[in-house]
Amino acid sequence: MPRYRLTVEYDGSGYVGWQRQENGRSVQGAIEKAVLSLTGEIVSIRGAGRTDSGVHAIGQVAHVDLGREWKSHTLRNALNAHLTLAGDRVSILDAADVPPDFDARFSAVRRHYLYRIISRRSPLALEARRAWWVPKTLDHEAMQEAAQRLVGHHDFTTFRSAHCQATSALRTLDRLDVTRNGELIEIRASAQSFLHNQIRSFAGSLKLVGEGKWTPEALQAALEARDRKACGPVAPPDGLYFLQVDY
Amino acid sequence: MPRYRLTVEYDGSGYVGWQRQENGRSVQGAIEKAVLSLTGEIVSIRGAGRTDSGVHAIGQVAHVDLGREWKSHTLRNALNAHLTLAGDRVSILDAADVPPDFDARFSAVRRHYLYRIISRRSPLALEARRAWWVPKTLDHEAMQEAAQRLVGHHDFTTFRSAHCQATSALRTLDRLDVTRNGELIEIRASAQSFLHNQIRSFAGSLKLVGEGKWTPEALQAALEARDRKACGPVAPPDGLYFLQVDY
Repeated sequence: MPRYRLTVEYDGSGYVGWQRQENGRSVQGAIEKAVLSLTGEIVSIRGAGRTDSGVHAIGQVAHVDLGREWKSHTLRNALNAHLTLAGDRVSILDAADVPPDFDARFSAVRRHYLYRIISRRSPLALEARRAWWVPKTLDHEAMQEAAQRLVGHHDFTTFRSAHCQATSALRTLDRLDVTRNGELIEIRASAQSFLHNQIRSFAGSLKLVGEGKWTPEALQAALEARDRKACGPVAPPDGLYFLQVDY
Repeated sequence: MPRYRLTVEYDGSGYVGWQRQENGRSVQGAIEKAVLSLTGEIVSIRGAGRTDSGVHAIGQVAHVDLGREWKSHTLRNALNAHLTLAGDRVSILDAADVPPDFDARFSAVRRHYLYRIISRRSPLALEARRAWWVPKTLDHEAMQEAAQRLVGHHDFTTFRSAHCQATSALRTLDRLDVTRNGELIEIRASAQSFLHNQIRSFAGSLKLVGEGKWTPEALQAALEARDRKACGPVAPPDGLYFLQVDY
């Protein structure tokens, strides 16, 4: 069966998350339903990452096996037509035929995420559900300094959800950069793989550094505690974007 | 009575427009309701521009007269608290006390608008209702060249709505610039004042130039026709943002 790689953008705010679930609309389910409408086939697609409810994607990647060959632009356009008809805020940016050993999840060598914070006194109107509103001034330079203490190979037990299903909390964080542009603070994270809630846990703890409640040393101590209770409050999903997957 | 200038951001997609109307939620009405909740006063606020339904603002300006003096940050924060409680996607970015002869509409010396087009094959998920989706390649350099023919003092009858209430169609357009950044095309327009639907009419006609359906000369001929029927299809409100007012 020919295999296709799909690059997917979505607004996560109306979904229970990427993964198909009994209790509501999922992004995976929306795409599988579009495939069913298009080809009559009941498929199970696999994504590079399972984003939580409210988390967005600019470049999630999934693969799907189909019963016959499709021109890639025809497949993309037809899936988009079905997604639009269903009222989904999910868009297939690209479809490409790939070798049968390509796996969106297991072939990934690096994943890139962005976390957006808007730091200003007034609530968000245009950016509501697209960023974390923090009505305080944040010291992004202190956040950047602290973030560097998390980069590298560590046991990230402090920064993983209690529901995380990974067997090990050891991960290699390649990049964690904090930059500011006016009232927008962006945190960019790259690694081969992340633990459940890892980036939102980073963002919540880095915000404490930005407020001056934690020193960079305190963040490092939280990492070294290897204890979920040492983590700052987890940041909301609204600010998180799955940017890109490298293969 | 002390007068206050309010700088306002809003997501126009859930509103019938700026102006209070019988048939739905308006931005003006939302702010007037917040003032009533805060002070018990029934006020009528005046905005610098009457944006249509679906049009957004990053820096709309309005003025309001209140029965007593308020510290400006208290006024801003309290109005925002009431707007948030009411579920409005309207945010007061700034409140300032101004002299009694300040008028948000009549004191304005220049208004600045932005029109955003996203030119790509796939539908918009994250930018739905925040930009005009044009699934075609647009030549932004041709659009920019054509736009310069509209700059200056002209009779803009071609580019005004049939419902425009202005007595004259003569306006001086100070700036109309088209730039591209990846798939995003931005049109920036500045003038002391605009006619009803003028920028959306510009955007709709410039898109025809970008597609190669109109030459820059054809746009100039449309201007010189001084005839509404010579205008291209009016662009949707989704891409339009009221950016700033100069006083």
